[in-house]
Order: sequence, then C-alpha cells, then structure tokens
Amino acid sequence: MSGLEVTKVVVTPIAFPDPPLLNAVGVHQPWALRAIVEVHTGDGLVGLGETYGDRRHLDLLRRAAAQIAGLDAFDLAGLRRRAAHAIGALDAGDQHGLTGASSQAKTLLRVFSPFEVACLDLQGQAIGRPVHDLLGGKVRDTVPFSAYLFYKWAAHPGAEPDEWGEALDPAGVVEQARMMITRYGFRSIKLKGGVFEPDTEIEAIRALRDAFPDHPLRLDPNCAWTVATSAGVAAKTDGLLEYLEDPTPSIAGMAELAARAPMPLATNMCVVEFAHLPEAFAAGAVGVVLADHHYWGGLRLSTQLATICQTWGVGVSMHSNSHLGISLAAMTHLGAATPQLSYAADTHTPWQSGADVVERPLSFVAGSVTVPDTPGLGVRLDRDALARMHEDYVRSGITERDDTAYMKSLDPTYETRPERW
Amino acid sequence: MSGLEVTKVVVTPIAFPDPPLLNAVGVHQPWALRAIVEVHTGDGLVGLGETYGDRRHLDLLRRAAAQIAGLDAFDLAGLRRRAAHAIGALDAGDQHGLTGASSQAKTLLRVFSPFEVACLDLQGQAIGRPVHDLLGGKVRDTVPFSAYLFYKWAAHPGAEPDEWGEALDPAGVVEQARMMITRYGFRSIKLKGGVFEPDTEIEAIRALRDAFPDHPLRLDPNCAWTVATSAGVAAKTDGLLEYLEDPTPSIAGMAELAARAPMPLATNMCVVEFAHLPEAFAAGAVGVVLADHHYWGGLRLSTQLATICQTWGVGVSMHSNSHLGISLAAMTHLGAATPQLSYAADTHTPWQSGADVVERPLSFVAGSVTVPDTPGLGVRLDRDALARMHEDYVRSGITERDDTAYMKSLDPTYETRPERW
Ligand SMILES: [Mg+2]
Ligand SMILES: [Mg+2]
Repeated sequence: MSGLEVTKVVVTPIAFPDPPLLNAVGVHQPWALRAIVEVHTGDGLVGLGETYGDRRHLDLLRRAAAQIAGLDAFDLAGLRRRAAHAIGALDAGDQHGLTGASSQAKTLLRVFSPFEVACLDLQGQAIGRPVHDLLGGKVRDTVPFSAYLFYKWAAHPGAEPDEWGEALDPAGVVEQARMMITRYGFRSIKLKGGVFEPDTEIEAIRALRDAFPDHPLRLDPNCAWTVATSAGVAAKTDGLLEYLEDPTPSIAGMAELAARAPMPLATNMCVVEFAHLPEAFAAGAVGVVLADHHYWGGLRLSTQLATICQTWGVGVSMHSNSHLGISLAAMTHLGAATPQLSYAADTHTPWQSGADVVERPLSFVAGSVTVPDTPGLGVRLDRDALARMHEDYVRSGITERDDTAYMKSLDPTYETRPERW
Repeated sequence: MSGLEVTKVVVTPIAFPDPPLLNAVGVHQPWALRAIVEVHTGDGLVGLGETYGDRRHLDLLRRAAAQIAGLDAFDLAGLRRRAAHAIGALDAGDQHGLTGASSQAKTLLRVFSPFEVACLDLQGQAIGRPVHDLLGGKVRDTVPFSAYLFYKWAAHPGAEPDEWGEALDPAGVVEQARMMITRYGFRSIKLKGGVFEPDTEIEAIRALRDAFPDHPLRLDPNCAWTVATSAGVAAKTDGLLEYLEDPTPSIAGMAELAARAPMPLATNMCVVEFAHLPEAFAAGAVGVVLADHHYWGGLRLSTQLATICQTWGVGVSMHSNSHLGISLAAMTHLGAATPQLSYAADTHTPWQSGADVVERPLSFVAGSVTVPDTPGLGVRLDRDALARMHEDYVRSGITERDDTAYMKSLDPTYETRPERW
C-alpha cells in the first residue's frame, strides 16, 4: 500500500435525547451534543471519530478539518501539526464546558483527538487490521465497563417519564443499579454524587453495598466537597469504595486529602493534561487517573499516559461523558491495548436509549465489550441516523452543554457553589 | 491482510573489528559483539533486529526466540508476554555488562527489544509502510547524529594501525574530529572521557571549541568523577558544553551536582529503566535522558519515554553502543518519529570501518541520516556478511564485552576505580 490520502473531512454536529441526570452543577439537558468526524480517502474508505459538540469546540474542529485534505492518514505527526496550525494561538485561555479550564496544549489535544481516531480507523481498514493492533496489540479480549448510576428525575419537566424512572434516594439508586446490571451485566458500580448532602449519598453507597456485595463501588461528587468534608466521607466509606473520585477541587486539595483517605483518590478533574502530571504525582494527589482519549490527545497519547501512570505507581481507569458508538469502539480498542487499565471503564451508553450513529454498536455482555478484531474501529456509520440526529441538533437549538443554566430555568433559586458541602 | 504469522526466528551472534577505543573502564576489545535477530513469516518476509551479543543476553534471546513461532507480528503485547514467560524470574539481579545493574523489568525490555524492532519491520513490510509510520509518523526528514570521539591508541597491540590513528592528547582528538567530520559532516561532537585526569580532558574540549566554534560539544566520562570534581569541571566548562554526560554516579550524586552545574546533565547510566524516572526527576538529577531502544524496550516504549521526558521538562538525546546497520535504521526511524529528540544522536558507525550486516546501510549526509520511506526498516540482511561475521564471532573466542579484562591483559597494573578523580 502506498499513500492513504485524505480527500475530504466532514464534521457533523448531532444531538440525541439525554435523561434528566443530576450532578453537582445541575441536570443534563434534554439533548446531549456530539460532533461526528468522517475522514474520507480517495478509494472510498471512511474513518470515524466522535467528540464534543459544543459550538466553540465545533468551530475549532471545522478549522482543523479544513486543513486536513491531502494528508496521508498514517501521518499522525502531520495531522497534529496541521491541527495546531489551524487553531493557532486563538484558543489560549478557553474555558471548555466538558473538560474544564483549558490551555493551548489541551485545546490542541482535544481538537486533534477525533481526527487521530478517524485516521487510526482508516489505517486499520486499509491494512485489514483492528485499531488495537496499531496501538501495540490487545492485552485482553474483553474490556470491562462499570454501571454508571445517577440521581435522576423520572422525566424532564413536561415530558413523559423515561424508562429508567426516578432515583432520588437509596432505594431508587439500588433499583436503577438492578435494572442496569440486569440489562448489561456490569460488575462494577459508580454513583455520580455531589447532588445531595454527603451523608445521604453515603447511605446510597451502603445500600448498593448491601444489594451488590461483590461489586466494586465508586462515588464521584465532582468536587462538591471541602477537604474536611471529603475526609469525613472517606473515613465513613472506608472499605466500601475501590476509589473516591474527585471529592474536592485542585491538586493541592486532593493531596491534602490523599494523605488521610484510606482509599485511592481518582480524578478526571484536577489532572486533565500532561502538564498537570508532575505536580500531581509529586504531591501524591491521586491514586488513579481517569484517562479519556477525547481530551488526552487520542488513542496513542492515552496509551502513553497509561505508561506514565504505571511508572509513577498510579492506577488507570477511564472517564466518559455522554457518547455514542464510535467513542465506545475507540474506548474498547484503547482499553484492549492498555495493559495498565486496572479498573472497569466508565460509559454513558445505557443512558442513550439505544440511539446511535453506528449501524451495529458494540454491545455489553457480562458488563464487558468484546474487543473487535475486524479492520479499523469495527463500526460503520448509519447515515440515516446521522442525518436524523443532525436534524435534532438543529431543531434542539442547543449549542452548548450547560447543566446549570438548564437547572436554573427550572428552578430560579438554584445556585452552584464550589465545595458546596 | 489477515495474519502475519511468525514461522521461524533465528538469532545469530556476530563479531566485527573494533578499534582500541579508551574509556573509564579500559579499552574496547579487538572484536565487538552483536546478536542479529531474524523473524520470518510464512510468506517469506524477514524482519530484522539487532542487540547485544554477550553470552548471557544471547541465552535469553534464544530462550525468547523459541517461544515466538506462531505469534502474529502485529501482536506486540503477545510478544512481550511470551518473552516474559521465556525468561521467567531467572534473570533477576543480573548484572549486564553494557547496560549496568539490571532488574527483572529491565532484562525483559532488553530481551524484548530486538524482537519488537523485527516485528515492526515485518509490519511495515507487510503493509508497505516505513516503520516511522507505525510510531506515529515522522516529524523530520533527516535525523542528526553526532561525531563520537574517543581517546584511542594507534592500534591494538600487535596489530596494524587502523585508519584513525592515535588520539591521546588534544591535538589527536581534534585531528580525529576533523577526519570524522570531513567524512560524515557531523554538526555536534561528543568526547568519551574518563580516560585522563579531568583537566587534560577539559583541554581537549577547549581545543575542539577552538577548532569547531559552532559545533555543540559534549563530554562523557562515564561516572569517573566525584561530585566535587564534576562541579569543578562543570564550572570550568561553563559555556562550552551543551550537556555534561554522566560525570558522576547515582541519581543522588547527579542531583547534588545538577544543583550547581551551569549546563544540563545527561545520562545513560543513572536512569536506565522506567523505575528510575520518578526518583531522578523528583531530585532534578538530569536535564537530558539518553534514550536507547536496545534497553528501553524497543521503539514504541522509547517514544513513550520521550513523552515522559517532555512532560517533566527533561530533554531527550540518544545513546549508542557499538552497532551495525539494523540498529542505525531503527534509531533513525525512532528519531524521525520522536518530536522530543532535542539533540543529535550518538552513533558508533564511523568506528565500524564499513563492516555491516545489511546490504546498503543508511549513510550520513551533512551529519544526518535521511529517514527511509521504504517499507519496514528499509534495510536488508547481507547473508554473506552475516555468515562471515558469525565465523568471526566463533573464531574470536570472545563471548563477553569486558574492556577492563582486555586492558588488564595488556597492562597488569591497570585498575578501575569508581570516581577515579
Ligand atoms: Mg468524574
Ligand atoms: Mg554515556
């Protein structure tokens, strides 16, 4: 095979229904946004990537997409140069909704990521090999995911109740877990917290432990607690949690807590780019980094992040925002080729009610996804679904994810407060 | 393409003439040893790797080689598992001549490396792509190397003088540099020191600076100095050296010195495996890590090492032992795909008098090697040369590299002493 030249790049923003999932800063809007990246070659191959769909990011994706035609899909170094050139220095200091305070380096890696995934998909298709073979080969045949529980309302206001029902107390959380585990077979459980006062959420954890004595448990209040509150929760949940995720903000806060907490602290909030690693590791702030190829610069750099974590004795798990089948496939190949992945990965898949942009999404069996050995990512775009979901994007009128604004529109007295408790 | 199954693995120890190059522990023996690894597939492809040829390492290579038939050449994770299984725990605590105190992890990466390179060569050949494409794509079209100068005798005792002549004083060193730079065009210069007392070697550096005002200079005494002596040399060579390489042993010693030295300290002696990185970086012991895929676990892990260095603000250069054209090609692909390579790489190529196991070795133009864009590593085995060099191996009777023993055989009063000055 000689060149694998990119002839066309298409970026399509889409929206799909999202249940009213509660968190520390509000509630999920009725629509979740994503952007689907297609990278076409002259001989008819299409590589796929999936990323955030908010307007600011979409603008940068389109700016990068305009620079990529003519590139060889094996030339990931050239892809990165072109992406860097395309976004320039304009985005320094950007605050990105889903990935927190930004830096120019982080913005570049976030924009680069879906194109890198699409190029790896193309490479794999062109050579007849699964993406995990391009990441060093698979170390496992199935990648375990966790049941990602949320406090939630029965329905968005004014809408019909969704299939999951209400979960606003321990019994509701346990019921949600039962339903999710019955359907998907997950063997680990994560509860998104930061919604109710800590003791209430600890009760939910205890109820989960009683109902699922053998499932490792995690709690993620998204920095809703002070260090002191976090230390109290950590003491009360000693022996209950495999890790406590982002209880409190900042590397310094996490480090102070880590010195006292009996369980590892995990993060996808205080360590979100390479520049954070030296300080965080020197301070002993985190025991587990939640990798996320969407902002760590794609699949190859995520495997490098995992090597770094291993070298410093830090565990690796995987973070998820609302996503569809392209990202699930990418996460699965990454998980397959990452020996250091020591925990089941997060996924929002159960919350998407089967909506997808791929024809036959990968599926969960006994809580795990079987690693595809077909060429590339192993998923194909469903163009009808893509068109429908793009129409939904246009119709929704939503161009940003803003859980707080949505909550305030429903409850004008609602306020977010860092370290609420 | 479906499977790329390994059908046969051949490990061939070879020897080639080596000039009497002096260093802190003696003098190069008349023969340098290497092991050539061939990994064959059913459809007639041959992937190449090159590594150390000492007996202990050779035993481990053969043990690993016996486990690899049937492996898919894309399955580097499986390769590593098989290598680990093959060498088992038997080698813990091995002291390896060319790479220093060992650990089980390091032994595994050293044994794994040539097979990984050979499998990447096979992958590239099978898909019609250069190896650098499998490492993320090239960031440069040429990889710069440095002139690697040695104090040396005119000849091994009893032998004819070699073409390089004697270099035992500043004038001899400058003459050697002129000859090497005239032939190869190198634009950086490294002097192997630790042979004479430090002030004598500083004089050679000053002479090189006078003769080559624009060439970055390096000095590498292989830990022959105390911290105090090193600090004195560092002060006297302020402004003369781009880096000072392994002046003194141990991470602690280097850290003590680094706090006082005006130039970066580089190492291929105190940081030689992933487990050394946290301590060394925390202590600020080194400003430059000399990567070497032969013991850092091959090309993919070496790119990961470079990412780690970048993340911690540490520079990357490249180390070399006596090597032939397979390793030169591997180093060139690695250098091409390593954005963080911030210094010209070391190479012993000029000292091999044109001896090689490949048909048309890559060559130096203006001090750099043009990165091959042909499939795989871009070099082919010269089977006649391999056979001859294997005969030389058998005839030489040498099975270990031991510069000290050879020196003592010539000068019974010779003693090595750590931190001699
Ligand atoms: Mg989180
Ligand atoms: Mg050295």
